[in-house]
Amino acid sequence: MALVNEHFLKLPGNYLFADVARKVAAFKSAHKNASVISLGTGDVTRPLAPAVVEALHKAADEMGREESFRGYGPEQGYQFLREAIIKNDYLPRGIHLDINEVFINDGAKSDTGNIQELIRWDNSIGVTDPIYPVYLDSNSMIGRSGVKDDHDRWSNVVYFPCTAENGFIPAIPDRRVDVVYLCYPNNPTGTVLTKDELRKWVNYALRNDVLIFFDAAYEAYIQHPDIPHSIYEIRGARKCAIEFRSYSKTAGFTGLRCGYTIVPEEVSAATIEGERIYLNPLWFRRQSTKFNGTSYLSQRAAEAIYTPEGKAQVRDTINYYMQNAAMMLERFRTLGYEVYGGENAPYIWMKTPHGAPSWKVFNDLLNRAHVVCTPGSGFGPSGEGYVRFTAFGSHANTEEALKRIERWF
Amino acid sequence: MALVNEHFLKLPGNYLFADVARKVAAFKSAHKNASVISLGTGDVTRPLAPAVVEALHKAADEMGREESFRGYGPEQGYQFLREAIIKNDYLPRGIHLDINEVFINDGAKSDTGNIQELIRWDNSIGVTDPIYPVYLDSNSMIGRSGVKDDHDRWSNVVYFPCTAENGFIPAIPDRRVDVVYLCYPNNPTGTVLTKDELRKWVNYALRNDVLIFFDAAYEAYIQHPDIPHSIYEIRGARKCAIEFRSYSKTAGFTGLRCGYTIVPEEVSAATIEGERIYLNPLWFRRQSTKFNGTSYLSQRAAEAIYTPEGKAQVRDTINYYMQNAAMMLERFRTLGYEVYGGENAPYIWMKTPHGAPSWKVFNDLLNRAHVVCTPGSGFGPSGEGYVRFTAFGSHANTEEALKRIERWF
Repeated sequence: MALVNEHFLKLPGNYLFADVARKVAAFKSAHKNASVISLGTGDVTRPLAPAVVEALHKAADEMGREESFRGYGPEQGYQFLREAIIKNDYLPRGIHLDINEVFINDGAKSDTGNIQELIRWDNSIGVTDPIYPVYLDSNSMIGRSGVKDDHDRWSNVVYFPCTAENGFIPAIPDRRVDVVYLCYPNNPTGTVLTKDELRKWVNYALRNDVLIFFDAAYEAYIQHPDIPHSIYEIRGARKCAIEFRSYSKTAGFTGLRCGYTIVPEEVSAATIEGERIYLNPLWFRRQSTKFNGTSYLSQRAAEAIYTPEGKAQVRDTINYYMQNAAMMLERFRTLGYEVYGGENAPYIWMKTPHGAPSWKVFNDLLNRAHVVCTPGSGFGPSGEGYVRFTAFGSHANTEEALKRIERWF
Repeated sequence: MALVNEHFLKLPGNYLFADVARKVAAFKSAHKNASVISLGTGDVTRPLAPAVVEALHKAADEMGREESFRGYGPEQGYQFLREAIIKNDYLPRGIHLDINEVFINDGAKSDTGNIQELIRWDNSIGVTDPIYPVYLDSNSMIGRSGVKDDHDRWSNVVYFPCTAENGFIPAIPDRRVDVVYLCYPNNPTGTVLTKDELRKWVNYALRNDVLIFFDAAYEAYIQHPDIPHSIYEIRGARKCAIEFRSYSKTAGFTGLRCGYTIVPEEVSAATIEGERIYLNPLWFRRQSTKFNGTSYLSQRAAEAIYTPEGKAQVRDTINYYMQNAAMMLERFRTLGYEVYGGENAPYIWMKTPHGAPSWKVFNDLLNRAHVVCTPGSGFGPSGEGYVRFTAFGSHANTEEALKRIERWF
């Protein structure tokens, strides 16, 4: 008799953003004339850079000719892209990677969701709270998170609260944790860690044989020179950290699907008997078994953002979004709201007025101002009492949303 | 302390095709002047159809303009493609699907690897033998296959041998199996099941509460009218079967990445307490958590193969490959080899001369004829004593490979 994986039944019914999308769709169908502005899901809106579009055309033509057609690519990605990554994203920061440490994927969501397959089902995990829901949901699906208590906390998860009270700096844990997820610049709070703060985590991991899964999907938004772009800027991180990058936010690839994961050759985990097992070949085995590479066109498109034109065009788009972020921060503060992030990340994290529940503010904003935000409680217990706004809108829409919030809220 | 998922350590070191690729690369580097012809990996070689290339260009332009740019698509795929699938691949065969039953993916490898996440870790699985390695490898990674014995058999897997002796018709099992993987037209043997044979499996599944994972990645190669293209042509299959389709072999999308999975609303599995749980919402939850859709360009490209021009162009390419298959069958038989498949599938399954081991024949072919095949034993115990050839080469290469085999082997 086929039995279901009952761990699925312990999950919240919907993935957070699917939930938000459903509520917005319901509102729209009941209010046909309302013009709803979304500052909710972290999805980009600016078109692809011309250098990227040109690369897509060129690759499409190649695929249409017998002599240049390409079938299956290497599961870990094409060499041309892996070399461009090493040369442009790491070498300038003094980080030396071997090409076998770079795995191209179809976006960071897949790999941050799949990476937990490499560790034992009963390892405990630690997460900053609030957090991108994929980390916990993917662990819960295999039963690693345990069960949820009445306060929406998983029994086998250690939460590191990040709130206004501690300046959004997670405290090093005082109890056993096997694997830690860190995301910096942070989604959803938009806050960052300095090199000194990040070093504390790497040292903690090295001392306690902890693995760090480091999600750097937003590194392109870092403005201040003292904020690390990669965890490998910290000495020792090659022994304990796996890093995830994405072109989704960097270059507007949410619809193209391309990102990458770095699994250093030194990073390892133990067997029960204490033998060290390197994770790089395990990840290669995982990827070559369950993944067939991302589209050749998307990989050529990603390569194009490393050309001089591509770099300039991508930088312009990031600056465009960061102008939104600056405008939002300034206006929200003028209106008396407590807001965080938005300086090295495309997210603004707002304390709800008078500590109102996140979903109430989400509903009020949608109903009164026809503006969509993301309720902070969807990101974990410490997200309650906050909502997230993204800077990914157009200038006009962002401006209009701010006006409506000023008027109606 | 981070502990490794030790189930990975029980796996054969390499994914079969990675292993073959490595051996071929080693041979090439030792024999710089050898012109090696690959009839090994099932990868297509004909260029994309003009209708597909045109759709790629159009989509690339759309993504470069602000007014038509698209970010994240729905995780389960765009409506335009899901509707085209229902209308073109199923309705003409009398199969009615709801749009929510169609999930677009980045290729059948991902979904046939991931689908096992929906069932309990200790469910037993049954597979035709030989078989596409992804099914067993993906189950082994979570420990569901048990441990391997001295004869390379997994302890928690029931094997249904398919050999020349039983005409490659798997016998209905006589012991407990919870989940069955079927792939028809079959990879690697190239053989098919008639409607009557497939009906026996559906009835067995319905009687015993068994789930069937049905991989129909090669259905476009079916030539005979009495061979089912979809398991849903069989009454009752909607209650017990999930079907996988791919554009990789249908339309040369191995480098573009697009396929789909059908999860009917009626298909369910039980909890330990006997409650029925529908798998469709669980699969949606899985996909929306760990997947962000496949490239918009790839989805538009897939849509284009359903236009009249697209259909004709894709049909031409399939005919081209099937001419190779016919040529190979004819020539191999003339040479006195025992060969199977190749009539409704792009694979030829050859009995090794004098029962030689598969890997020996692989090595001999590579060293003497500079032709790559895939050793049958890589597909499971009953694959020993066979090798697989694919029809995906060019006419010229296939012809040349046959000449060399005739001369040297």
